[in-house]
Amino acid sequence: MAADELGEFERIARFFAPLAGPGGLGLLDDAALVECRAGRQLVVTADAIVAGVHYLPDDPPELVARKLLRVNLSDLAAMGARPLHYVLTTAFPAEINPEWLGRFAEGLGEDQRRFRIDLLGGDSVGTVGPAVLSLTAIGEVTAGKAVRRSGAKPGDLVWVSGTIGDAYLGLRLLRGEYSELSPEHRAYLVRRFQIPDPRTQLGPLLRGIAHAMIDVSDGLLADLAHVCETSQAAAIVELDLVPLSPAAEVIVERDPAMRPRLATGGDDYELLFAAPADAAERIVALSSRLGVPIARIGRIEPGAGVRLADAYGRTIVVEQAGYRHF
Amino acid sequence: MAADELGEFERIARFFAPLAGPGGLGLLDDAALVECRAGRQLVVTADAIVAGVHYLPDDPPELVARKLLRVNLSDLAAMGARPLHYVLTTAFPAEINPEWLGRFAEGLGEDQRRFRIDLLGGDSVGTVGPAVLSLTAIGEVTAGKAVRRSGAKPGDLVWVSGTIGDAYLGLRLLRGEYSELSPEHRAYLVRRFQIPDPRTQLGPLLRGIAHAMIDVSDGLLADLAHVCETSQAAAIVELDLVPLSPAAEVIVERDPAMRPRLATGGDDYELLFAAPADAAERIVALSSRLGVPIARIGRIEPGAGVRLADAYGRTIVVEQAGYRHF
Repeated sequence: MAADELGEFERIARFFAPLAGPGGLGLLDDAALVECRAGRQLVVTADAIVAGVHYLPDDPPELVARKLLRVNLSDLAAMGARPLHYVLTTAFPAEINPEWLGRFAEGLGEDQRRFRIDLLGGDSVGTVGPAVLSLTAIGEVTAGKAVRRSGAKPGDLVWVSGTIGDAYLGLRLLRGEYSELSPEHRAYLVRRFQIPDPRTQLGPLLRGIAHAMIDVSDGLLADLAHVCETSQAAAIVELDLVPLSPAAEVIVERDPAMRPRLATGGDDYELLFAAPADAAERIVALSSRLGVPIARIGRIEPGAGVRLADAYGRTIVVEQAGYRHF
Repeated sequence: MAADELGEFERIARFFAPLAGPGGLGLLDDAALVECRAGRQLVVTADAIVAGVHYLPDDPPELVARKLLRVNLSDLAAMGARPLHYVLTTAFPAEINPEWLGRFAEGLGEDQRRFRIDLLGGDSVGTVGPAVLSLTAIGEVTAGKAVRRSGAKPGDLVWVSGTIGDAYLGLRLLRGEYSELSPEHRAYLVRRFQIPDPRTQLGPLLRGIAHAMIDVSDGLLADLAHVCETSQAAAIVELDLVPLSPAAEVIVERDPAMRPRLATGGDDYELLFAAPADAAERIVALSSRLGVPIARIGRIEPGAGVRLADAYGRTIVVEQAGYRHF
């Protein structure tokens, strides 16, 4: 954690040291300490975001912070891990103002409390380009019990939490579309784009139930393809079973061609998993206990690739299998 | 580890997946796994570097990679930790070429073998600005035995490994100075700037000996000031005891005013520590066993701040207490 710029120490002391947990040693040391609990493995993931690519310079700084944190928590949830800590490195241009930083740190603080995690440390440097923020999140899981992408088996049912396509619609809305939508639906979709709700409770409870799991970031079909590839299996998804929010339903009702597009949108940060058919009852019970909708959308088959089908099993061809940022 | 750009998957598979250790799961999952060993703590540190600030775009990519890795290993060593793994996020401009990336990955691979560490995972995104590379390193230490910055006590002796000021001189040399120096001395100083030798063996062996430790990145005096501040103590350093390399001695002989400047240079990545006086014999034995020079340069006193003194105890005023990059 070298100091590279005048002002770095002050910036760290003012904005980031208050976020440090006990293992962060007040951000005053060369490194941070993380406890090892017997019978556990730590789970580590990282994401970087760039101003103008993954967020817009005039996005609320609190939301930028919380989204950066939450996309990582979603990755931990997809492994069945409970989140513990995070490490943050920031490269900001010289013109970043303290108010922006203060609000950014506030966003981190708010979500630290919500998800019971703390800051371990990091680094803060300057750049002449757009800001680049990199966050490494650390969670824990019972040793040997992490849920991988690679365990899906033919016969497994495919499930997804929450609703799909909202973030994609939220982005289109921010670009000026869907002005005819009700204010409530508009606000809902924009929020789903701006700040995901990582399934940090559900993920760990799916250990021992899910054979394979991933979080939906590239798009439902693309992420299911990742599961199929690493599991060496195929999947079929029944389009009508893909869960949509009331706001998305309004849009799809007016423009039915949007329905398959939503299955290729991204940034849903829902959990997509394969589980044996006899686990269905437990999954439904879990859904009801947590108040988190979990929908069965398809099944794993022998072979390779992901096929989208209608209720009669006929293949639906999708224009765009993937997702790109602004 | 979300995918944000076309080509990210190929880039990861080609350059980075071969660097992944068992816990990295082939970089094919949402997160990586780290074993928890009973009676250990993990030690975590992070550094970010920016093209044009911390390295120059035409620096050899292998050296950029190895320096990024090594500055983090130096932080782990300063805590007395043994290095295990690292996580890497990269933000590269579109014009980065595969040859550069290949050589960058080669540099990582070479140092992975040397330091017996492996890649856990990370993220790769695009930027329109200069490249920003962020590395989080994970090591381990016997629980409760990490060496902090805060444990220095009046009466402790202050020690430093290796030689001081070489990297600072190497940077000046790259800027066109010291052309009169012998080719051997020139090559030595440039190398000391371009690629540090983190004291990964020495650091863990100083657990139980050093009361406080830090690695010299901001400059000997500035880093000792960090130790004093967190330890709530003062330090006196005797300038003539600060160890210089033969190359640096040549420069100081011609320009004696350079001697105090070297104590404020940076990027030495040597270990600076305070230890009780009765540990001196063990430290000398350790130095001789490892073949790593360790010099006694001063002592900890009650009070605050760092004072540089001549052999008669007279204070030497230093122009610049700190270090800035290009």
